[in-house]
Formats: sequence, structure tokens, C-alpha cells
Amino acid sequence: MADSPNYDLKSQSPLQLFERVTEQGEKVRALKAGKAPKDEIDAAVRMLLSLKLSYKTATGQDYQAGLPPRDLVLINNGTTKEEDEDFVDPWTVQTSNAKGVDYDKLIVRFGSSKIDTDLINRIERATGQKPHRFLRRGIFFSHRDMDQILDAYENKKSFYLYTGRGPSSQAMHVGHLIPFIFTKWLQEVFDVPLVIQLTDDEKYLWKDLTTEKAYEYAKENAKDIIACGFDINKTFIFSDLDYLGTSTGFYKNIVKVQKHVTFNQVKGIFGFTDSDCIGKISFPAIQAAPSFSSSFPQIFSGKENIQCLIPCAIDQDPYFRMTRDVAPRIGQPKPALLHSVFFPALQGAQTKMSASDPNSSIFLTDTPKQIKTKINKHAFSGGRDTIEEHRKYGGNCDVDVSFMYLTFFLEDDDRLEQLKQAYTSGELLTGELKKVLIETLQPLIAAHQERRKQVTDEMVKQFMTPRKLAFEF
Amino acid sequence: MADSPNYDLKSQSPLQLFERVTEQGEKVRALKAGKAPKDEIDAAVRMLLSLKLSYKTATGQDYQAGLPPRDLVLINNGTTKEEDEDFVDPWTVQTSNAKGVDYDKLIVRFGSSKIDTDLINRIERATGQKPHRFLRRGIFFSHRDMDQILDAYENKKSFYLYTGRGPSSQAMHVGHLIPFIFTKWLQEVFDVPLVIQLTDDEKYLWKDLTTEKAYEYAKENAKDIIACGFDINKTFIFSDLDYLGTSTGFYKNIVKVQKHVTFNQVKGIFGFTDSDCIGKISFPAIQAAPSFSSSFPQIFSGKENIQCLIPCAIDQDPYFRMTRDVAPRIGQPKPALLHSVFFPALQGAQTKMSASDPNSSIFLTDTPKQIKTKINKHAFSGGRDTIEEHRKYGGNCDVDVSFMYLTFFLEDDDRLEQLKQAYTSGELLTGELKKVLIETLQPLIAAHQERRKQVTDEMVKQFMTPRKLAFEF
Repeated sequence: MADSPNYDLKSQSPLQLFERVTEQGEKVRALKAGKAPKDEIDAAVRMLLSLKLSYKTATGQDYQAGLPPRDLVLINNGTTKEEDEDFVDPWTVQTSNAKGVDYDKLIVRFGSSKIDTDLINRIERATGQKPHRFLRRGIFFSHRDMDQILDAYENKKSFYLYTGRGPSSQAMHVGHLIPFIFTKWLQEVFDVPLVIQLTDDEKYLWKDLTTEKAYEYAKENAKDIIACGFDINKTFIFSDLDYLGTSTGFYKNIVKVQKHVTFNQVKGIFGFTDSDCIGKISFPAIQAAPSFSSSFPQIFSGKENIQCLIPCAIDQDPYFRMTRDVAPRIGQPKPALLHSVFFPALQGAQTKMSASDPNSSIFLTDTPKQIKTKINKHAFSGGRDTIEEHRKYGGNCDVDVSFMYLTFFLEDDDRLEQLKQAYTSGELLTGELKKVLIETLQPLIAAHQERRKQVTDEMVKQFMTPRKLAFEF
Repeated sequence: MADSPNYDLKSQSPLQLFERVTEQGEKVRALKAGKAPKDEIDAAVRMLLSLKLSYKTATGQDYQAGLPPRDLVLINNGTTKEEDEDFVDPWTVQTSNAKGVDYDKLIVRFGSSKIDTDLINRIERATGQKPHRFLRRGIFFSHRDMDQILDAYENKKSFYLYTGRGPSSQAMHVGHLIPFIFTKWLQEVFDVPLVIQLTDDEKYLWKDLTTEKAYEYAKENAKDIIACGFDINKTFIFSDLDYLGTSTGFYKNIVKVQKHVTFNQVKGIFGFTDSDCIGKISFPAIQAAPSFSSSFPQIFSGKENIQCLIPCAIDQDPYFRMTRDVAPRIGQPKPALLHSVFFPALQGAQTKMSASDPNSSIFLTDTPKQIKTKINKHAFSGGRDTIEEHRKYGGNCDVDVSFMYLTFFLEDDDRLEQLKQAYTSGELLTGELKKVLIETLQPLIAAHQERRKQVTDEMVKQFMTPRKLAFEF
């Protein structure tokens, strides 16, 4: 680090400035403790004051020891009331807006790029396939470097996919399927290999679980994932607790990431505190490492620096912003990303569907009757209070959860548009719209259950065995 | 955690109290942010004030957010001057006393037990062997639970040994040999298996090294360790970077330790700061995990809960105090310990020998001539300024580095006592004492070099291959 406080300070992030002030403060204390010559101490103090000034200029706030500038996503919806802020981190999604999180503002705040018509058209040209409904309908709405993936792909340079899941309980809900449905489509249309991380170690660290139980959940969840139809020859599913002890490359990448991320940074990105266990604090490196192909020497025959593309819900982006920041410093390519919106809770889009709240969720194990009851009882309606008012003023698709779910699961664009118009005009009643959703979801979930029944323990073992995938880079 | 602030507070350590205050502070902030009812906030604030009072009573200091009570070893030598404090942590040993660190005070401060004559006699009875000179001369001076190891051993219940080394450079110095010489003796007289950890990941995290270089140092250092004469059928040497990816048990224990240690704790124990990388912060768990036999399923045939005994220099104790604190909470036995003093630098016992200061060290690669020159030139003398004064007043063995080294390496007790008396009486001059040391060290190091030459890459590979050791528990 250069000694002049003015060197390159303007190009530094608030967090980098924060760390320089902290370091300089420690230096001053060390000099004083070591009874260094007065002029040396004075020079160090002057630099400290100058750095503090730079920090204040950059952040508009005084430096406070131990309080780094916070990088959580607090998006103000254009008003100044606290209640109108969207809160998004890997553990919590909360907004006061019944339409859900303001995703355009999230793009600005995260510094990602919107998936626009041009990009969707490029994907269509590159793959020769009609874009998935999740693309057509803005469910995958944001990306990082997808254009570079396509540039390379058009020049015959391929990539691999990486996605994952935290196996916190045996029951997965329909929202959990979104990244997997889309990832399966990507695997098919681009014909690329895929690695799926099951962060059983994360669940052990965050929840009141044994490692054995977390690993068991991982294997159970693998069955639901396999039931999505992934190609066994091109897909590797792994549990962290298991794979870390069988890969010669994974831990090396983890420790490399861990060397290049400070506690201040994870505090800023994830909101960790001094009372958090050191397992949580170092975990982000474990979610980062699968972004680098050298973490999978058996899978990719030791081939390094293969480009990675990560489809995930936008709340996972903090992990990968961190990863992209570290990547060039450890000689690895930055992973590209495709971000999805959250899958809303039955009660409304103010928060995402959560397996820990059974009333907010439709599980993949639910019977047709349970699905029907849950939707009829809990799905937040955009309809009017009385049939008369509804006929007169029409329903509001922007806040109606049944309509939102149909945008996720109803393949037919024309039918969806008809439903929207009929509901908005008041022609279609809430009960009728719910019926359409029930009739859409019931066969989808029944088919999933049927496919899941076909998944044997032997198949799970095969998917989870480190082995060379059928793909040449 | 119980809601009453008075519940069991007296039995809590300052750090536990600190964490309760911190948690309660966070709770108050959360309640305020969440606009909780006034009486609920008031109750939480009252508890916070009460906890702060308990903290002040226990520590004599006001609670300061982000500043946990520090647990580093600062031993006041009985005076109040700052310069008279011994400083000991895993990275630094510093005292102003030419006799070296005050080890009796270290025992009190660490809460360990002195290795007294009774214990040495018990070891002699249990093994039927004359105690090693390191025991006879107080070089291994402190222990934790060695009596329990002996109780079990006398009842035919065996244990395994665990020691280690941070491979920071190819050149090891004579001081590095101390734990290995003693561990070899323990392996022989107790007839037990041994695991040796080479923390190449630690060196990668702390130094400006690549992982490849750190691993290379590990393999080079393994040669010097093997040259100490360990039994290949009962010894497993492992590099963290390598072994973590080949063991089904190691990572599981690491993550278990990481779940049960907070950042506040490692901050208190190791002095980490918010600017440290998350790799350093989580590393202590990696040094802790080999204390549990389930980290070595291949080595011990999956046998868990085998008692572990760790011979190490006292500066490594912070890692194992932490380990012993965690062990019962993850259902593992606490490791027992045997602590050695530091090996003094040539310039004097104010600090330990350090490979990064070539003038302070005699390397295992030094030629007879280099050994002679270094001792003659740098070994701090307890002799007088002139021959006349020396003859009249005698030398001081307590501060004479050559004499200290002889206590480590000269096997013959009678000869050592004669040298001490002759030097103290002034009969023996500094040059003559140095000559004895030179003549003791030269053949020892030459023999080591000879044995090291016999160590082939194939042998290193064998020692470092996870395999069942020749021992039944």
C-alpha cells in the first residue's frame, strides 16, 4: 500500500477507504505503544486525519471504528418513509409493496444489467430455441456478463453452469424449483455441463441441526432436483460436507478466496457481527469456490479457467459480487450471472415463499387437495370486496398472487394474456382465477411426484459421485 | 439463554459476559428499530444496564462495544513498568528478561499445570524408561490432563499423539526440532501412533506465498521431520492443503469447531482484527480438528473418541485452550497437552529462535564451519567483560545462550552440571563453553543431515499417504 494518503484514493470504494483508515489507526497505536520518535508518530497521525477526511468526503459520514460502511440492499421506493424500504439479503426479503420488490431499483443498487429484449433475442439466435417463459416474462430479469458468455459461445467457446440449494428441510416448495427449471432449460439449449452445490455445511452452521441430518436433507433434496430432469451424464450434484473431503481442488480455491476477503467485507456484505461464529464468517468462500472450474478436477479433467454461468435468485447475488471481486486477484475468470425475481409467498409478494412457514408455501409433497385448499384459503387476491364491485372495477393482477404464480407456471402466453384481461376487466372472478392456478399446479406437482418416485438411491449416488462429465472443453 | 440477567452470571467468563452484553445491545436496537411496545423496550434496556454492571464487576472495566476483554498473555513480572511484561502468542514471543519468559507465571496465567517430580516419576513407572532430558530439565514444563492420560494408559487404554509445524520456508532451525525430538521419544516409550499436521494453508494465509509453494515447503519440511526417526508404520504426516480434500472426517470436525467459536472469541484469543481476512479468522478450527480422532477415519479405521495428547511449544496453547473449550460441546474428548519452553535466539532468551532472522538461528542445513562461526559470533554470553573479571566473579548460566542450548542437546546430566559449576565459578571461559556447544551441535546436525539424505521422495509419499496405522485401539 502506498504511503501517500492521496494516492489513488478517489478510485477506492468506501469499504477500501474504511480499511485504510482502520489500518492507519492501528499503525498509530503501534507507534505510540512502541514509543516511536515523535516526528514519526506525528506523520502517522497526520496521514490518519487525512484518510479520515477522504472517507468522510466519499461517504458523507464520519469514520467510526468497527462500523464499516454497510452494503446491504436498502432500496428506497422514492419516498422517505422507512416502511417503504425494500430489504434483500441472502436470508431475508421484505418489502411493504404488495407488488413485490422494485426490481429495477435493485438492478441500479446492485450494479447489474437488465435482461432486455436485445439480450433475449441474442439467446434465441445463439441457441436456436424459443426463449424460456422465465425470460419472456422477466422472471429472470437481471444479469452480469451474459453478453460475454454469448460472445464466447458464438465463437465455439463453451461454459459450465453452477447453481445450488441450502438443504434446510426435507420439504421443498414450488418456489425452490424456479432456478432448477431454468437451469435445466439452459443445460438443454446450450448443451453444457452443470454443477449443483448443496450447502449442507451452511445449514449446519445456521440451524439447530447435526451434520448427519444436514447431509440427509441434502440427499433428499437431490431427489427433487434430479426429478427436474437433469442429464446424468452432464450433471454433478454435491454436498459440501461430503465433497470437500474428496476433491483435491475445492479446498484450495476456498482458502484462496478466504485470503482475499476481510471480516470488514463480509460484515458489510452479509451483515455478520462479532458474535457470529467463525464458520458463518468464512462460509461465503465456500459458496464462491464452485464458480471456479479448478474446484472440480475430476469433473472437468483438471481443466482450469472454464467460464462459469450462475443462474440464481437475486438474493444470492451478494455472494457472487464478492466472488467476482476476488476472481481476478486469484487468477480466475469472473463468473457470469442470471438473476431471478423471488417467488412470492401465498400471502402476498411482500416476502418470498418460505419453507419454514407452511401456510406461505405449496410443497412438492402436497396432495391435489392440499394444493386446492392452500390456494383457496391463503393466496392473496387482487379482487374486489364484493362480486358487484369486482365486475364494475375489475381485479388487480399486479398484487394478485394466483396471477403471479400463473406467470411462473402457465406456459401458454396467449392464455395468460386472456386471463389478465379478463381479471382486470372484472369478467373473471378471483375464485375462477384460483381455479385456473389449481388446475395448472396440480398436474405439474403430480408429475413431479411421479418423476421423483422414479429417482432411486442408486441414481442419487451416481449424480453425487465425482466423475468426468460427458463434455469436452 | 435465560432471561434473568442474574442467572448464573458469576460463573461466566469475562468473554461470555461481554457476549451477553453485546447480544442484549443488539436486542435493544432491534426492538427500537421494530417499534416494539415501550414497556418491552424498557425491560430490555434495564437488562442491558444490569448486564453491563455485571461485566464491570467481573472485569473492573466499562463495557465497550467491539472491544472484548483481551486474553493474550501479558504477564507482569512483578513490577508495574510496561517494559517488564512478557508477550506470548502464536506469532510473537517477547520478554525484557535475559533469562527468558517467566514460565511459572505463564502456568498461572494459562491455567495449566506444572510438570512436577511426581508426574515425571509416574511417566517413568508407566513406560519403564528413564525420563527424557527435556522432562528432567524442565524443557517440557507444563501440561494439561497428562495425569488422565497416565490413568487411562495404566488401565490399558491407549492414546494417539498429535503435533505439527507451519512450513514457512525450506530451512528449519534446531529449535524446530524440539517438539519432534520429544514426540519421537513419546512415540517410542508409549508405543502409540502419531499424526503430524503441516499447516501449509496457514502459511499461505499469513505469508506472501502461493499454495503450490506452501505445499512444496510442507514436503521439504516433512523430510527433516522424517529424519528425526519416526516409525513409518505408526506415523501419518499431512499437509492441510492436500489432506482436507482426501479425508471424509477432517472437514466435518473443522465445521463443527467453527460453529462453536465466535469472532469475539478468536479476537480475544488471537488478537484478530476486523481487517484480517476470513481465512485467518477461521484457521484456528483447522489446527483444532486433528485433536479429534474422527478427523482420521482411514488412519484409525473410523474409530472415534480416541484420546489425543499434544506435545507443543507453549505459544501454541491458545489454539488448544480453544479446542478444549469446544470439545465437550461437539461430543469429543478434550486433548491433553505437554508444553515446552521456547528455544532461545542466539542473541538471547528475550525472544525465540526465528527462521526469518538468519543471525538468530542455527539451521539444520548449516555446515560445521557455519555452526562454529554463528555460535562464536552471535551466541549471547553470560561471561564477564574481561578474563580477569570472569575468573574472579564467574559467568552467569541463567542468561548464557550457549549454556541454555547445552541443556537442550547435551545428554549427559553430570557433564552438564560440571560445566555449570565450572562456568559459574569462573574456571571455564565463554570461549571454552562455546567450544563444548559447537562440538555437541556439529555431530548432531551432521548426523541429522546424513539421515535426511536417506529420506527419499518415495518415503515422503508413504508417510503422507492416508492409511491405517499399525495400532489397534
